[in-house]
Amino acid sequence: MFSLYLIPVPLTEHTNAHYIISYPLLNSVRFFIVESAREARRNLRRIGFTTSFDECTFFEWNKHDNTNNPVSSWLNHCKDADMALLSDAGCPAVADPGAEVVAMAHQSGIPVVPLIGPSSILLSLMGSGLNGQSFAFNGYLPVDPLKRKEKIKQFEQHSLVHRQTQIFIETPYRNQSVINDLLSILHPSTKLCIAAGLTSDQQYLFTDSVSSWKSKRFTLDKVPAVLLFLRE
Amino acid sequence: MFSLYLIPVPLTEHTNAHYIISYPLLNSVRFFIVESAREARRNLRRIGFTTSFDECTFFEWNKHDNTNNPVSSWLNHCKDADMALLSDAGCPAVADPGAEVVAMAHQSGIPVVPLIGPSSILLSLMGSGLNGQSFAFNGYLPVDPLKRKEKIKQFEQHSLVHRQTQIFIETPYRNQSVINDLLSILHPSTKLCIAAGLTSDQQYLFTDSVSSWKSKRFTLDKVPAVLLFLRE
Repeated sequence: MFSLYLIPVPLTEHTNAHYIISYPLLNSVRFFIVESAREARRNLRRIGFTTSFDECTFFEWNKHDNTNNPVSSWLNHCKDADMALLSDAGCPAVADPGAEVVAMAHQSGIPVVPLIGPSSILLSLMGSGLNGQSFAFNGYLPVDPLKRKEKIKQFEQHSLVHRQTQIFIETPYRNQSVINDLLSILHPSTKLCIAAGLTSDQQYLFTDSVSSWKSKRFTLDKVPAVLLFLRE
Repeated sequence: MFSLYLIPVPLTEHTNAHYIISYPLLNSVRFFIVESAREARRNLRRIGFTTSFDECTFFEWNKHDNTNNPVSSWLNHCKDADMALLSDAGCPAVADPGAEVVAMAHQSGIPVVPLIGPSSILLSLMGSGLNGQSFAFNGYLPVDPLKRKEKIKQFEQHSLVHRQTQIFIETPYRNQSVINDLLSILHPSTKLCIAAGLTSDQQYLFTDSVSSWKSKRFTLDKVPAVLLFLRE
């Protein structure tokens, strides 16, 4: 039985060279399960894949029809050859699609081999200086303003009781309104980390108390951001 | 102002070559804040650092006397040169010491630059096929048997309500007793992932229902392990 490799790809188009990882083992892989073939081809070239794409087969999982369960049939290729799973950015299956494919590989007894690569969640947590011994990733905050405020309060309370860093991602165009909410709702002494444009040349990563952020009148451009806080 | 680089190092002594990352930028760094100088030197050579150690200064944070606050004085070198922070294994500041050093860098206005590297938490989550859109890392379960059982129940309930993957690490000699507890307490349909010896040639990574694990009469050797579960 061959393996299903889980391959991280760069987070942004303008990735700093320090954050580009190459995977020599990829050059023997011919079967790829991908979020989109176009992005996968582009990313494969960026991470050192030199084989001609004419020799490769791409299965796009975002287009599959679950009733016919093609993922399971795709994975049959692992009987004869290694396969690789890629999403369009970052680590597959973490704040990104792909977990269903991995779960099906386990059901089929196929060895799963995750490789090292860029995760905005891990990088922001490392760089935050907040508690890395206990943390939770919660995805997006609610869009509805009242529900969002309620959730922020709940997460801050949970953070206080369990000394647990709370991590969120945000879509670029909502950055400023979510940050405004965090600054108005969180306790002044709560530590807030804003991590934006991670791995790009414009990376911004800084932690301070809510009261200090307020006094700086900070504004954030429309870039992908991770927000982390800890109420101690 | 120069930067504080956060440098991940290999997780185990017998790391598979796929998991060794080199950092060319490191070769211009001369000041290192480390968990132990001996391990740091060994790991630096493994990740491609070629400069003579005679030119380097190592500050060991595990020996520092907080009353004199040497971390802050060490970081003064960042006015003139880049520095790097390393722990003895994996990513500094995530399930590992180092967060206090990062926090102090933020307080001093020093840019913090986390680099990509091996994290057993991230690798096991990617490879688990469990929910990567919401997850919590909780460190170690309690050693006391009664408290441990109570905690497992609480975490499973939290997992069910929030559809949140729960992640734990365990010391090798307690692997089997914790796994026995998980298998006896968790709901039969709860999905459990056992990830052991990650990044080594003996990597074991598999997810199944608690009832299936029980029927396999699985035993785990004394290797570093990450345990993940999701009650859906």
